[in-house]
Amino acid sequence: MDLFKNNTQIEGIDTTNACYGGTAALFNAVQWMESSYWDGRYAIVVAGDIAVYEKGPARPTGGAGVVAMLIGPDASLVLEQGLRGTYMANVWDFYKPVLDSEYPKVDGLLSNDCYIQAIDECYKNYADKFTKKYSSFKGVGNEFNWMIFHSPYGKLVQKSWSRMKYLDYIHNHKDVSQFDSNSNSHPLFSYKSIPSSKTFNDKDLLKISTDLYKQDYKQKVEPSLEFGSQIGNSYCGSLYIGIESLVSGKKSTDIKVGDRIGLFSYGSGLAASLFSLKVNKDISHFKQTSKVQERLSQRKKCSGKEFEDVLAQREKNHSLAGFEVKEEDVKQSGELWEGAYYLKGVDKLYRRTYDRASL
Amino acid sequence: MDLFKNNTQIEGIDTTNACYGGTAALFNAVQWMESSYWDGRYAIVVAGDIAVYEKGPARPTGGAGVVAMLIGPDASLVLEQGLRGTYMANVWDFYKPVLDSEYPKVDGLLSNDCYIQAIDECYKNYADKFTKKYSSFKGVGNEFNWMIFHSPYGKLVQKSWSRMKYLDYIHNHKDVSQFDSNSNSHPLFSYKSIPSSKTFNDKDLLKISTDLYKQDYKQKVEPSLEFGSQIGNSYCGSLYIGIESLVSGKKSTDIKVGDRIGLFSYGSGLAASLFSLKVNKDISHFKQTSKVQERLSQRKKCSGKEFEDVLAQREKNHSLAGFEVKEEDVKQSGELWEGAYYLKGVDKLYRRTYDRASL
Repeated sequence: MDLFKNNTQIEGIDTTNACYGGTAALFNAVQWMESSYWDGRYAIVVAGDIAVYEKGPARPTGGAGVVAMLIGPDASLVLEQGLRGTYMANVWDFYKPVLDSEYPKVDGLLSNDCYIQAIDECYKNYADKFTKKYSSFKGVGNEFNWMIFHSPYGKLVQKSWSRMKYLDYIHNHKDVSQFDSNSNSHPLFSYKSIPSSKTFNDKDLLKISTDLYKQDYKQKVEPSLEFGSQIGNSYCGSLYIGIESLVSGKKSTDIKVGDRIGLFSYGSGLAASLFSLKVNKDISHFKQTSKVQERLSQRKKCSGKEFEDVLAQREKNHSLAGFEVKEEDVKQSGELWEGAYYLKGVDKLYRRTYDRASL
Repeated sequence: MDLFKNNTQIEGIDTTNACYGGTAALFNAVQWMESSYWDGRYAIVVAGDIAVYEKGPARPTGGAGVVAMLIGPDASLVLEQGLRGTYMANVWDFYKPVLDSEYPKVDGLLSNDCYIQAIDECYKNYADKFTKKYSSFKGVGNEFNWMIFHSPYGKLVQKSWSRMKYLDYIHNHKDVSQFDSNSNSHPLFSYKSIPSSKTFNDKDLLKISTDLYKQDYKQKVEPSLEFGSQIGNSYCGSLYIGIESLVSGKKSTDIKVGDRIGLFSYGSGLAASLFSLKVNKDISHFKQTSKVQERLSQRKKCSGKEFEDVLAQREKNHSLAGFEVKEEDVKQSGELWEGAYYLKGVDKLYRRTYDRASL
């Protein structure tokens, strides 16, 4: 009896909460490493999801991407110990109640509101922890050299950075715009006397702060969107594709040892955390060794019609059992490459087997 | 906008792996507490599952039970730090591939085999860690005062204890049976020369070891089955209901400060761990304050037919949306008690609301 061909002493199982699942797995892995139970092994965190929407306006925002992270001692990018601001609440902004469907139910407007409110709460909790750790907090604008957000789409990210900078301003942290933070001629001056909880949907505030901090956004936040803007929203993977963009994309040469990278993770439902990494070593080799841009450029362009057809096929086959893909079909499809993994079959008992293509 | 009426800074999200999910949550909680991220708060671990089977021979083994555990410093029962043996493998013994059904697919024989093999592997890994921590390991028979198993049904638990004691014996740990462990007249002597990997399905071995260690089983293992035998298999909750049985059941008065309690957690798929608790304080108040036996005795006895009817109703309503339960019906049902939580409704967008009964 050889039940356990692939047996292991791996620790840790699936963590699930919309786009926050990968973040929870990362936290669990790091806490395992800080605990008495750690026995010197590396951890692998895999952040991924099925990121497809049913037909409708949200569909084009879906994407595809999974990030695997190797976590271990003496890393180039190091999580700041004991430092994160977390926020959770019970809301129905995006969820998957129809269990045999891949598609979520989405209340897009509510979800945006939740995201921005979570920014406020995580900012506050992170600032408290930061102050405890380092005895002062000068605002994310001053403390973060780079900032990465969970990125369902680009515009929400810019809105979020503007929001954080506005929070910096009303908390009296030194501004980096062309205006004197203490002057009543500062464009946001009138907002100092309004509680932040009253300004979530203030369109004037959004416009003023977006304009005011545009340059800062371009410099600190945009570099993390490089790959994501080509991939679309990959749900759990999105934040971590942001790290890959930052450290191996066009702007990666500007990253210095000692820089702090802020990360905001948001999962509907909702669970959110603001945390940070420090650059512990020279990372210039990341850009040289990364294959992401090369692999993105190898993608096959297809029409909207083809995309719709593939998703329709996928929807039809979603819960299918009792089939096997013939090797001949794999060879003739032209869709797989040598060594690519593919689903070989699902038997009548729904047991899945995978294989690698040999062309 | 008051999206966040129940907002919190709670950390941690759902962990899912058949009956192992609650164990993973417990490990994650404890590791959080040992890490730099812990800020002094208690953790609550909730171990539960839908423990129903489709019509057929497995149905009567299903049960119902959820365990909530408060985890914090200065506890009466303390996890032994840095000590656990974990084992994982990729098998299809019990799984839920039909996503809109509550029922699992079960290969019962395979699952039993997996469980027993996991015992062997966890035993080995636990023994290694134990030896590293305390410089020697004298076998579970000598090291554990009490032992609790994940308990899908009682017979498998007895088989597992017999297996562990047999492993003790072939690893030359001092026996506690009436036989001299070193003598060739020991009933298991001939098994010393057979690799343990060859004996998983050895019926003679099972019979001999079950007889040989019956008394030991009665004393160390049976007390943990007291409540579970009335409840049935509660999946994730099962192991932890075992703790409750042991520390507040009939035999709880025999538990002494300093005793070690072994725990074996098994989740199909599979993930398994052998770990241990030490009794850190007098626990005699547990028996006095526990309401489990009282609440079990308040249950309503129903016929097999009624049970089948309820499950049929449940199956029909499983994915239902767009309904609300009327307060009048709650009052008239006679099935709820004052203050009981119940599902008040699921709206057309599948959003669930709960309420408490006021009779």
